[in-house]
Amino acid sequence: MKVPKSLISAIRKEQVFLLATHINPDGDALGSCLALAEALESLGKKIRIFDRDPVPELYRFMPGHKKCKSTLGNFLKTNPLLMLLDCNSPERAEIEGHTFSKSVVIDHHETESPFGDIRWVERTAAATGLMVFHLIEALDIRITESMATNMYTAIAVDTGSFRYSNTSPDVLRASAELVEAGAQPGAISEHLYERWKKNRFDLLNLCLGTLEIRDNVALIYVTRDMFKKTGTVEADTENFANIPRMIDSVAISALIRETDNGRWKVSMRSKGQANVAKIAAVRGGGGHRNAAGFRIKTDLQSLKKTLFTAGKNVLPKR
Amino acid sequence: MKVPKSLISAIRKEQVFLLATHINPDGDALGSCLALAEALESLGKKIRIFDRDPVPELYRFMPGHKKCKSTLGNFLKTNPLLMLLDCNSPERAEIEGHTFSKSVVIDHHETESPFGDIRWVERTAAATGLMVFHLIEALDIRITESMATNMYTAIAVDTGSFRYSNTSPDVLRASAELVEAGAQPGAISEHLYERWKKNRFDLLNLCLGTLEIRDNVALIYVTRDMFKKTGTVEADTENFANIPRMIDSVAISALIRETDNGRWKVSMRSKGQANVAKIAAVRGGGGHRNAAGFRIKTDLQSLKKTLFTAGKNVLPKR
Repeated sequence: MKVPKSLISAIRKEQVFLLATHINPDGDALGSCLALAEALESLGKKIRIFDRDPVPELYRFMPGHKKCKSTLGNFLKTNPLLMLLDCNSPERAEIEGHTFSKSVVIDHHETESPFGDIRWVERTAAATGLMVFHLIEALDIRITESMATNMYTAIAVDTGSFRYSNTSPDVLRASAELVEAGAQPGAISEHLYERWKKNRFDLLNLCLGTLEIRDNVALIYVTRDMFKKTGTVEADTENFANIPRMIDSVAISALIRETDNGRWKVSMRSKGQANVAKIAAVRGGGGHRNAAGFRIKTDLQSLKKTLFTAGKNVLPKR
Repeated sequence: MKVPKSLISAIRKEQVFLLATHINPDGDALGSCLALAEALESLGKKIRIFDRDPVPELYRFMPGHKKCKSTLGNFLKTNPLLMLLDCNSPERAEIEGHTFSKSVVIDHHETESPFGDIRWVERTAAATGLMVFHLIEALDIRITESMATNMYTAIAVDTGSFRYSNTSPDVLRASAELVEAGAQPGAISEHLYERWKKNRFDLLNLCLGTLEIRDNVALIYVTRDMFKKTGTVEADTENFANIPRMIDSVAISALIRETDNGRWKVSMRSKGQANVAKIAAVRGGGGHRNAAGFRIKTDLQSLKKTLFTAGKNVLPKR
């Protein structure tokens, strides 16, 4: 991974930086912003992190997370350089329509737009946090314990804690350096995976009880009634869609959530070649081969039937 | 980590090796034996792997696992050097009472006995697989894809896939080299975590439905009836004891299994300072601070009451 020289020069030259990331930020988005913000501050730069949404409770252990602001205040008057992290269009960050001294994109997602005076997009990088790690190294900045914790969390979240196939030698070596700089894998994992509220666990129980499997397609669902019964909200179903994947016969798993009476949100996950993006695309949704989703107005029985049929149709032929 | 010179010399000098590991072998035990066996064979040595129990189905993706034999055959007639891996006494491997040209122990567990002409015990090493990695490097042997897969699996299993606090810089750097040598983190994780039989998943569902939490102590149980209903066996409850730990209020979690009418097996797990080994010790069981167990003859209601009380008593004072 090669850090663009133009990026290094821009950072050295400019004094004021607005860091922004995508809406509904995840650990990679937040960790990248927080680590880079601290690194820039250590160079005496003035920074602000803009993040439209509140930091999810899950990530409030990340050092400095209170730096994330959902307003711009008077910061634009300082004519900052905009850095989009883990995101490549101002619209994805809900920060469009402003002017900046310069704009920089640091991202590992497929490009959505040609935005950015300096564009550093590494589609094969496991996490934006990994790119920020290389950037901070290229800037010769000493990695503090808090930077390390933020970057390690970013990488852990986007590699499923080193379980996904994007776990490259670069990911593992960078993580080794982050542990040396003070990141604590045990404590970070405890924060990420062992801080469920009891009612979220109750919701999971109810949801797993709805499991049906047909032709390697697994369906689970959560109704408004189940949210009400357990005192949970939609955000509490995060990752539920992945759980049926642990069954060996399951190639596609889908989580169905009732958002409103007669309205449903579907999140699909697949193993290997089964392409769930195809199912989402014809229903106005989006995503990638192994993770996609859509919204639909229908009844639960019809939706289940639709998903079993559509799922079966995108399974690889044997 | 320093590989003893005496070990290197013994390997260079001897020609016939019996590799053995503990009964009920896990991924670290098997991966260590399989990788080292292949490395020794590449030096032209004659080897046999002795493992009392069949390789668990979970680990039958590991290259060369069919080399593990549960009998010694005529191999002892060749007067082999014995190498105990992930194990430090012949009793733990059920291979006691034989004589060997020499004996070597390579292990990361607390020492149980002074056995071994050459003893290489690294109590702070995350996995025996990591020690074998350093040994193979010290022997200047090229790491093949199959060796890499076996050692990566060994390390992944003993670090909870890099989630436990034993995930050291050395663990991560060795893993980076193993990925470069051909280990595939995504495929290995799929084998380890996404190959559940449907009936095991059904058992998990039933078991989670029994969850009770009192004073930060969580209990779940599996009765003989639940095994029967789902067509599962005790081995299918592997790791279930850990699951309630994901709830933030849970400091101690215990899985209770009915082994016989009126007989129960208890596996306890804890977070941080709560010492479950104390609970096990007074009931004739054993283990470590964060993972311990015991067997008992009683009825379920009394056992639950006992565990709630005993659990509360070992919680750290606030």
